[in-house]
Amino acid sequence: MLIVMRRDAAEEHVKKVIQMLEENGYKARSIPGGERVSIAVLYNKAPVDAAWVQEMPGVKEAIAVTRPFKLVSRETKAEDTVVKVGHVAVGGEKMTVIAGPCAIEDESQALTIAEAVRAAGADIFRGGAFKPRTSPYSFQGLGEKGLQILAKVREATGMPVATEVMDLACFDMVEAYADILQIGTRNMQNFSLLRRAGESGRPVLLKRGMSATVEEWLMAAEYIMAEGNPNVILCERGVRTFVRHSRNTLDFSAVPVVQRESHLPVIVDPSHAAGFRDQVMPLARAAVAVNADGVMVEVHHAPEKAKSDGVQSLYPSQFAALCRQMQAIEEVLHL
Amino acid sequence: MLIVMRRDAAEEHVKKVIQMLEENGYKARSIPGGERVSIAVLYNKAPVDAAWVQEMPGVKEAIAVTRPFKLVSRETKAEDTVVKVGHVAVGGEKMTVIAGPCAIEDESQALTIAEAVRAAGADIFRGGAFKPRTSPYSFQGLGEKGLQILAKVREATGMPVATEVMDLACFDMVEAYADILQIGTRNMQNFSLLRRAGESGRPVLLKRGMSATVEEWLMAAEYIMAEGNPNVILCERGVRTFVRHSRNTLDFSAVPVVQRESHLPVIVDPSHAAGFRDQVMPLARAAVAVNADGVMVEVHHAPEKAKSDGVQSLYPSQFAALCRQMQAIEEVLHL
Amino acid sequence: MLIVMRRDAAEEHVKKVIQMLEENGYKARSIPGGERVSIAVLYNKAPVDAAWVQEMPGVKEAIAVTRPFKLVSRETKAEDTVVKVGHVAVGGEKMTVIAGPCAIEDESQALTIAEAVRAAGADIFRGGAFKPRTSPYSFQGLGEKGLQILAKVREATGMPVATEVMDLACFDMVEAYADILQIGTRNMQNFSLLRRAGESGRPVLLKRGMSATVEEWLMAAEYIMAEGNPNVILCERGVRTFVRHSRNTLDFSAVPVVQRESHLPVIVDPSHAAGFRDQVMPLARAAVAVNADGVMVEVHHAPEKAKSDGVQSLYPSQFAALCRQMQAIEEVLHL
Amino acid sequence: MLIVMRRDAAEEHVKKVIQMLEENGYKARSIPGGERVSIAVLYNKAPVDAAWVQEMPGVKEAIAVTRPFKLVSRETKAEDTVVKVGHVAVGGEKMTVIAGPCAIEDESQALTIAEAVRAAGADIFRGGAFKPRTSPYSFQGLGEKGLQILAKVREATGMPVATEVMDLACFDMVEAYADILQIGTRNMQNFSLLRRAGESGRPVLLKRGMSATVEEWLMAAEYIMAEGNPNVILCERGVRTFVRHSRNTLDFSAVPVVQRESHLPVIVDPSHAAGFRDQVMPLARAAVAVNADGVMVEVHHAPEKAKSDGVQSLYPSQFAALCRQMQAIEEVLHL
Repeated sequence: MLIVMRRDAAEEHVKKVIQMLEENGYKARSIPGGERVSIAVLYNKAPVDAAWVQEMPGVKEAIAVTRPFKLVSRETKAEDTVVKVGHVAVGGEKMTVIAGPCAIEDESQALTIAEAVRAAGADIFRGGAFKPRTSPYSFQGLGEKGLQILAKVREATGMPVATEVMDLACFDMVEAYADILQIGTRNMQNFSLLRRAGESGRPVLLKRGMSATVEEWLMAAEYIMAEGNPNVILCERGVRTFVRHSRNTLDFSAVPVVQRESHLPVIVDPSHAAGFRDQVMPLARAAVAVNADGVMVEVHHAPEKAKSDGVQSLYPSQFAALCRQMQAIEEVLHL
Repeated sequence: MLIVMRRDAAEEHVKKVIQMLEENGYKARSIPGGERVSIAVLYNKAPVDAAWVQEMPGVKEAIAVTRPFKLVSRETKAEDTVVKVGHVAVGGEKMTVIAGPCAIEDESQALTIAEAVRAAGADIFRGGAFKPRTSPYSFQGLGEKGLQILAKVREATGMPVATEVMDLACFDMVEAYADILQIGTRNMQNFSLLRRAGESGRPVLLKRGMSATVEEWLMAAEYIMAEGNPNVILCERGVRTFVRHSRNTLDFSAVPVVQRESHLPVIVDPSHAAGFRDQVMPLARAAVAVNADGVMVEVHHAPEKAKSDGVQSLYPSQFAALCRQMQAIEEVLHL
Repeated sequence: MLIVMRRDAAEEHVKKVIQMLEENGYKARSIPGGERVSIAVLYNKAPVDAAWVQEMPGVKEAIAVTRPFKLVSRETKAEDTVVKVGHVAVGGEKMTVIAGPCAIEDESQALTIAEAVRAAGADIFRGGAFKPRTSPYSFQGLGEKGLQILAKVREATGMPVATEVMDLACFDMVEAYADILQIGTRNMQNFSLLRRAGESGRPVLLKRGMSATVEEWLMAAEYIMAEGNPNVILCERGVRTFVRHSRNTLDFSAVPVVQRESHLPVIVDPSHAAGFRDQVMPLARAAVAVNADGVMVEVHHAPEKAKSDGVQSLYPSQFAALCRQMQAIEEVLHL
Repeated sequence: MLIVMRRDAAEEHVKKVIQMLEENGYKARSIPGGERVSIAVLYNKAPVDAAWVQEMPGVKEAIAVTRPFKLVSRETKAEDTVVKVGHVAVGGEKMTVIAGPCAIEDESQALTIAEAVRAAGADIFRGGAFKPRTSPYSFQGLGEKGLQILAKVREATGMPVATEVMDLACFDMVEAYADILQIGTRNMQNFSLLRRAGESGRPVLLKRGMSATVEEWLMAAEYIMAEGNPNVILCERGVRTFVRHSRNTLDFSAVPVVQRESHLPVIVDPSHAAGFRDQVMPLARAAVAVNADGVMVEVHHAPEKAKSDGVQSLYPSQFAALCRQMQAIEEVLHL
């Protein structure tokens, strides 16, 4: 933390701030020179909360300097983390494609879509069994029945399966069936859920909160890693902005930023960000172009009959075309 | 829902849309005239998800018309809901003042602050026993020990106590001690927590999510009411914007909007919105001026020693001055 | 500016950064200690743009420390600026009330409204003669005819008049008639307009840009002051956020922040921020409660006939009631 | 516009609204059925402002239905507009690459960079002669001297040149030298500047405002087209959001949305959106992947010496590598 003093701050004010900091266990050092004095706070452990000094006489501002994350930081671990999900490696040399319907509706729907996306080139199948819905009156998912269908899909297609775990109540059950535990955008700061995921042996797909900074997102991953689970996949899914022509605005800059700050893999979900089918294909291609570690896309063979989010699901034929384009763009990056 | 057709849509396109809607169980009626045809979707029950029609040939746009909430709506219940918390009525004629520290630190801290805020005019005491924190390494609250201290505060001062319930794991315990169960901004769409709160006999204070629309916020309250608990108090606490001089931006327009759409009481929390002490007093006064049903303010007798959020806590003397101003402004509104 | 080095930065990297800074004319000083080294950039004149160092080897981040504004800063001039507009003092002890229609439509409309707002307690009359409109097909104002009507209003009522100056083309004309030159939100960074306003002898009302930070807003005022015009009144009018129930979100925190950073008076325009009449009255009261130096409100005797923004204009009787409430709240603050 | 009545609205309220609408020159038609009555407003010319009805008794909401733009709309002109700039076609089959420094600093700098970007594959050279700067104390551009250098670059390299026109005062001069007149983000709603650009024979590059909706942006283009200039190129350059790791957030969804709503070409500027060099390359590739009609990138041979925005400028070698990647991605889209 850096404390910036006012130009007219008296020497006594500077001394008082330093004294106060040291009484609270910080080490403080003044930096004279220029138009004003600043005070650096050193050797502080973890998140410093010395913001109160900014109301002391003579103080102009307190500016946070160091980042609070440890285990997720690339400064702690320089090499990329590769998360193994069955035979699939997320974060390695090859981009990972995750695809499937928003919600599992029945066995035939799930298998139809799974076969289609596998044939097109998907690596991992996704489908919701427990659905968080804005309205209590909307379809909430099939629950355990949905998880059983996911297990059948895995058996039939060989693809690992990813599904959302919404709360502690259903955690053990989801963990028993799924290959990847997805934590949704609304739960990004559900800290007891994060801790429980940290105790799991399963890889965790952590979606960014709808209005989370990258720092808050990485701190959420820190919760999981701090409990002992190193297998975290980050997922950018759009942030809330004033924009109204898409459900959310995909923050593509977050991909290189996360890759610089952290060693964890980061994928992109264009389906929820867009909310409209005709935006999904360009945004998915863009995700490959920014060098994300993977893409997660919603696909449905009959979107107009889908029980949720049909309007943003690709038709299988669109998805197949998209996969061809994504692979070709990926090759461009390796040139 | 209203389906707007393109100017050049063929009559056959219009027919096809109507047919599709009716096959999916909706009643559709075309509205000819003007430059283009529109189609109204009628008698739809609860949240309609016919957004998929907007990709049919000839369709320009699908616009949601009716609001999805029922129990929370003023159309369902015209008169104001008054929530009784012990002897205090929230949402009645008198504004409610809730005050206390961010976190309970020890008995002496809690009692000192409680006596001070009661003397100044607070109706309800607040204090966190379980704290949701961005970093896993920050102080997480005293847990049950904190709840026991809250119970002592209630006994000593006669004030009902409000505290946050973070998850299902601690729910029964918090419910056993607290007079108001607070659901925090990060949990506004933690649907299992909302349902559990709906089964409780305790009043619930539901904070608005950091980037929630008023509609999403009211739908979260709908989750609670749908399980049978009518005693929901809404709390505006600021939304995330591009602004950097305050932690969040208080959305004061939300107060009259909620009061028009819903019969539930709505209070304002200026402390978390501002994040800085010198903004709290003006924003608290503004909350009274917009006619909110109450204000929740953080107070600490030694903010520089506080274990969390000290920088936004008022000193007891500031709080006392604020209470006098708020009461005087309240009287102005009753002129 | 503070340059934060990576934990693993070599000593040679630190040296290189310092050398590079000094070659570019800055004075740099390293601050060893703690887990990493930081480098303070000192004696830099005005806006430093040394952000490029953050891409040098070993550098983690470059953080701006000092604020770029000079003339508008309270560090430069400690006492409040009081702007004299005829016999009215803006920024003094008494809150200023500016009121009138969005656009001047004809003489009778303007005089009717002016008499009504003066009787209710307004200090200054406002009305647009040149209107910036999102659509080229909307009513664009009466132009000089509107300015002549404003002059008649001043003569008839004794109130100074405020009106928007949209561009250089109409500047001299507006300057000849108006007592306050209003620069609109879309022109906050129209730098040639700002410079021209800086050459004027008239007070300038500078609205905050719809997505401007307080720093950018104060820098816009700096443009005006740098040309020699010290009479700038700042006007908060809401910022663009994801919120949809109001046209914009009033940023009330900006008022105390501006008052701390700058000596210039700051008023609030709740009409454009809200966009709906039923939000204007509570927000106007809130503006007084946060201790703004004034309020600017749209009033129309027949809003349903208004040529622009009728939906947000108060009826004269509402305005009169509002003035009574605002005066009473103002008295509360002086207690 | 659609007027939604409250469920409990009396028939008399419905009649009153219809009568009021018709008195104001609209044609209104009620749509009975379902839980409530709605009223469609028909045959309204251009931007309807009947929002005032939403405060009439019994009215729940007024919802805008039709879009206000005409000339820019794809409903008016179905085929893509191709803007000819010298021998370059923007909006045709081939993506256009515009590159150059943020500001023209001297002849040698401009020519050095121009030769480099032409060799790498750029179609059009860009460089600022008049610079809008947040601070009045920052470098403001070379003015006419800069325009003369641009003319030399065109002569020397054969590339058309694009440069910003900041205000009416410098318009004729810029128009005399430049092949493309760029209107910056801060001037997107500088309506007199837009009108003047509409009278020009030069193509106009219209940047999106930092917080403009697509609708407002298209309406700004409508201003230009309404004066008779059909050669408008739209440029997405990022919107302001709560995100802090990039200067702005590029809204890639805007590209397909604009392409659906309008026939005008739309390009992407990743340099100003990102603000940091290491984000520019991935974002530029993404722009091609979403099928934008072109990309505008800042390049500087010595960014650390640049007089503005050096930190976001690519080195010529980076730009050359980027061009190869962009061309390869473009080919993928044509597969």
